[in-house]
Amino acid sequence: MADNKKMVEAITSRDEDFAKWYTDIVKKAELVDYSGVKGCMVIRPYGYAIWENIQRDLDRRFKETGHENVYMPMFIPESLLQKEKDHVEGFAPECAWVTVGGSDKLTERLAIRPTSETLFCEHYAKIINTYRDLPKLYNQWCSVVRWEKTTRPFLRTSEFLWQEGHTMHETAEEAEAETLQMLKVYEDFYRETLAIPAVVGKKTEKEKFAGAIATYTIEPMMHNGVALQGGTSHYFGDGFAESFGITYQGRDNKLHYPHQTSWGVSTRMIGAIIMVHGDDDGLILPPRVAPIQLAIVPIAMHKAGVLDKAQEVADSLKKQFRVKLDASDNSPGWKFSQYEMQGVPLRLELGPKDIENNQCVLVRRDTREKIFVSLDNVAEEVAKLLDIIHEDMYNRALENMKTKTFEARTYEEFLTTAKETPGFIKAMWCGDVECEEKIKEETGGVKSRCIPFEEEQLSDVCVCCGKHAKHMVYWGKQY
Amino acid sequence: MADNKKMVEAITSRDEDFAKWYTDIVKKAELVDYSGVKGCMVIRPYGYAIWENIQRDLDRRFKETGHENVYMPMFIPESLLQKEKDHVEGFAPECAWVTVGGSDKLTERLAIRPTSETLFCEHYAKIINTYRDLPKLYNQWCSVVRWEKTTRPFLRTSEFLWQEGHTMHETAEEAEAETLQMLKVYEDFYRETLAIPAVVGKKTEKEKFAGAIATYTIEPMMHNGVALQGGTSHYFGDGFAESFGITYQGRDNKLHYPHQTSWGVSTRMIGAIIMVHGDDDGLILPPRVAPIQLAIVPIAMHKAGVLDKAQEVADSLKKQFRVKLDASDNSPGWKFSQYEMQGVPLRLELGPKDIENNQCVLVRRDTREKIFVSLDNVAEEVAKLLDIIHEDMYNRALENMKTKTFEARTYEEFLTTAKETPGFIKAMWCGDVECEEKIKEETGGVKSRCIPFEEEQLSDVCVCCGKHAKHMVYWGKQY
Repeated sequence: MADNKKMVEAITSRDEDFAKWYTDIVKKAELVDYSGVKGCMVIRPYGYAIWENIQRDLDRRFKETGHENVYMPMFIPESLLQKEKDHVEGFAPECAWVTVGGSDKLTERLAIRPTSETLFCEHYAKIINTYRDLPKLYNQWCSVVRWEKTTRPFLRTSEFLWQEGHTMHETAEEAEAETLQMLKVYEDFYRETLAIPAVVGKKTEKEKFAGAIATYTIEPMMHNGVALQGGTSHYFGDGFAESFGITYQGRDNKLHYPHQTSWGVSTRMIGAIIMVHGDDDGLILPPRVAPIQLAIVPIAMHKAGVLDKAQEVADSLKKQFRVKLDASDNSPGWKFSQYEMQGVPLRLELGPKDIENNQCVLVRRDTREKIFVSLDNVAEEVAKLLDIIHEDMYNRALENMKTKTFEARTYEEFLTTAKETPGFIKAMWCGDVECEEKIKEETGGVKSRCIPFEEEQLSDVCVCCGKHAKHMVYWGKQY
Repeated sequence: MADNKKMVEAITSRDEDFAKWYTDIVKKAELVDYSGVKGCMVIRPYGYAIWENIQRDLDRRFKETGHENVYMPMFIPESLLQKEKDHVEGFAPECAWVTVGGSDKLTERLAIRPTSETLFCEHYAKIINTYRDLPKLYNQWCSVVRWEKTTRPFLRTSEFLWQEGHTMHETAEEAEAETLQMLKVYEDFYRETLAIPAVVGKKTEKEKFAGAIATYTIEPMMHNGVALQGGTSHYFGDGFAESFGITYQGRDNKLHYPHQTSWGVSTRMIGAIIMVHGDDDGLILPPRVAPIQLAIVPIAMHKAGVLDKAQEVADSLKKQFRVKLDASDNSPGWKFSQYEMQGVPLRLELGPKDIENNQCVLVRRDTREKIFVSLDNVAEEVAKLLDIIHEDMYNRALENMKTKTFEARTYEEFLTTAKETPGFIKAMWCGDVECEEKIKEETGGVKSRCIPFEEEQLSDVCVCCGKHAKHMVYWGKQY
């Protein structure tokens, strides 16, 4: 039986067992619950509130760059999914299939969307006629399904929430610019809102999206040195347009195929927040997505005037920040642990002595630093501190990524580094998929993360085969 | 080939063919497109923007009444759906079933949620332990699937977007109060935001939700006199809790079943907006959900200063209103028709002569009234007019509902009224399902809409069988 006086249970230590530490946090911070359906999760209020803050911020960025939201059906008829050969090969093996509607067996199976390129193409074929109809800049917020064998909350689930942008352009150049623009939007969002640094660049042929000409990716590093593919942006050229018969009359009065992009990020970002910032006491949430930015804990709450003053402070801060005043019967110590577990960026303590001195105590979740602040300028201090916390969180994550990024010039060096310390390895590559496969096999899963936009010339030859090197690649294990 | 100089095509007249008028509007105002999947629609940017405005407003009302958002899986294992007998009987016949995941046949079929009571109950069984855990006030925004035979955009589609609230309470009284509170939230929303009046009340046993003890409903009347079930709020008692083994330790230290509610509204509301307010020139959108509240159409646009002034006016209004300045090459006449079709509440015309006189012309979509306004106080005038338009739209809809609401004291009178004029019929009823079925059959589809909270005593006997009357019922055909 639950008891409101219970102690907040300790979680597994991050350095001892990273995987268990992660699942302890998602459970104990009440982000998700496991459901009775294989690989599907219940996103609980605290977890969903983080997602709502993420959505609001990203949606604003999408609209500022001219995009409009739409909603496509969740079903894709099998014949529609098959229209683009590479695409169906990539996705059909992991689709969930509806075969019965009501009491009738369907004449054609329906896939639940694993991604919606085919649906957007079918629609675009109907509404695009001339160059005046271009560009089309659409986005959709929805859930998608990919039938996964092994799953982990937020990181890999059979159903997950995401957004998928799908755009059509007059020229290849415009479409390529859109692909890169949206990668930049993701990169800015990770840095400015999630306080997460990342490596960005182009995926190799082996790792690109099924049906794309080029896939760009943002790859943040988790605290343990493992990468997470944090978002992707794809350039399709006019291949899908051709398969789906989408044409427009150009300025030259001739028919052309438009050029296409798609791009997406998902609830997986919440996994990144946990694994980049969290510590042994639980979550540490970036202030700009934290459902509660400031938790007010009254001390000696039942003494005259304390709760009134706490309420007054809460009311004055509520217009500007997401504030929770906890006037429950739990002990202050229990409350401290609880809001630490939930990663609330700032705690405000206020007791009779503080009130006497017209002050309160602000405690940072990330550093545990205590700051005494006059009650006359709490709002300014909170605003300033939340920004500082954001910057400090970003810098700590950046420092971790730098510390765990290595260079390898020989294959021996590569294998030793891959074995000793999880992290990113920068190394030259010949461009052949055989070397990617050999590296993956001999390191137990190190894959090419991306070819960064700014490559360094570490040597002239491929770290694996010794042939002429075409690119510098970031390598690493991934979730 | 589309041409930006094309004329806006006329639509079918509302009085001539209401059904065709409706589908003409959804197509020509670019609200939806039909998809290749039976009964599923593509919600296009203009339609989806209405839904976003609806969501934002309702979500605020839900949060103000203490509710939190969550996300449940879209799949319901067949065994879970079967846990509550009435519920499965009501929904299983219209479920879409997933039977294959990847390349494997599933050992148990998964229904795509037609509604999520069962999923919420499974979760609540895990997280509710004591009275301190109550109430749980959860809501979810998602899509649901009901395998429909005949479909119509927004009104009845195999997949639709909605919100579903699911709450758990310590006592029956609290749960009943919640059920009525959320019905009130819907009623307020329809009146204050959609400018739609409605009859509210309790569904009869025959019409209530599968598994509920009581279903309350909001029933707006469309322009043609036909009703639309616009939203429902259900009280479940502790029946589901018992079936799902949800218990809590009460203040008396004994185990009890909590009491449950659920409530929902859907994209069907967009259908109501069209059918309550629209006219022969297209949509008329309530200002508070209109994606564009004010369309600015420059006149003699290529004369010096016109476009600059129009841009200046647009910029000054954008902070306060959703404004579109149309500087395209289309003629002013074409633009007028276009924004009329799209139901934009206000049009602002601005030409060289207006600028000379420091004025502009505001034209109301609903009444075509033209108002000359000084450029010094456009913002105040627009704000005032949008409120007036809202009120006038509500009052016209109310007048229509009143005009098409009849009373019947004899069965003959009932049949004649039902035959002559579509609308609501107020009549007494004995409480027996047999009379409901007889009326439905002999009128070609008139059903009980609801028992209103304030019943009138029209007579002492049932209008159908002549037995003692228990209630006054609103009757009518429905979409």
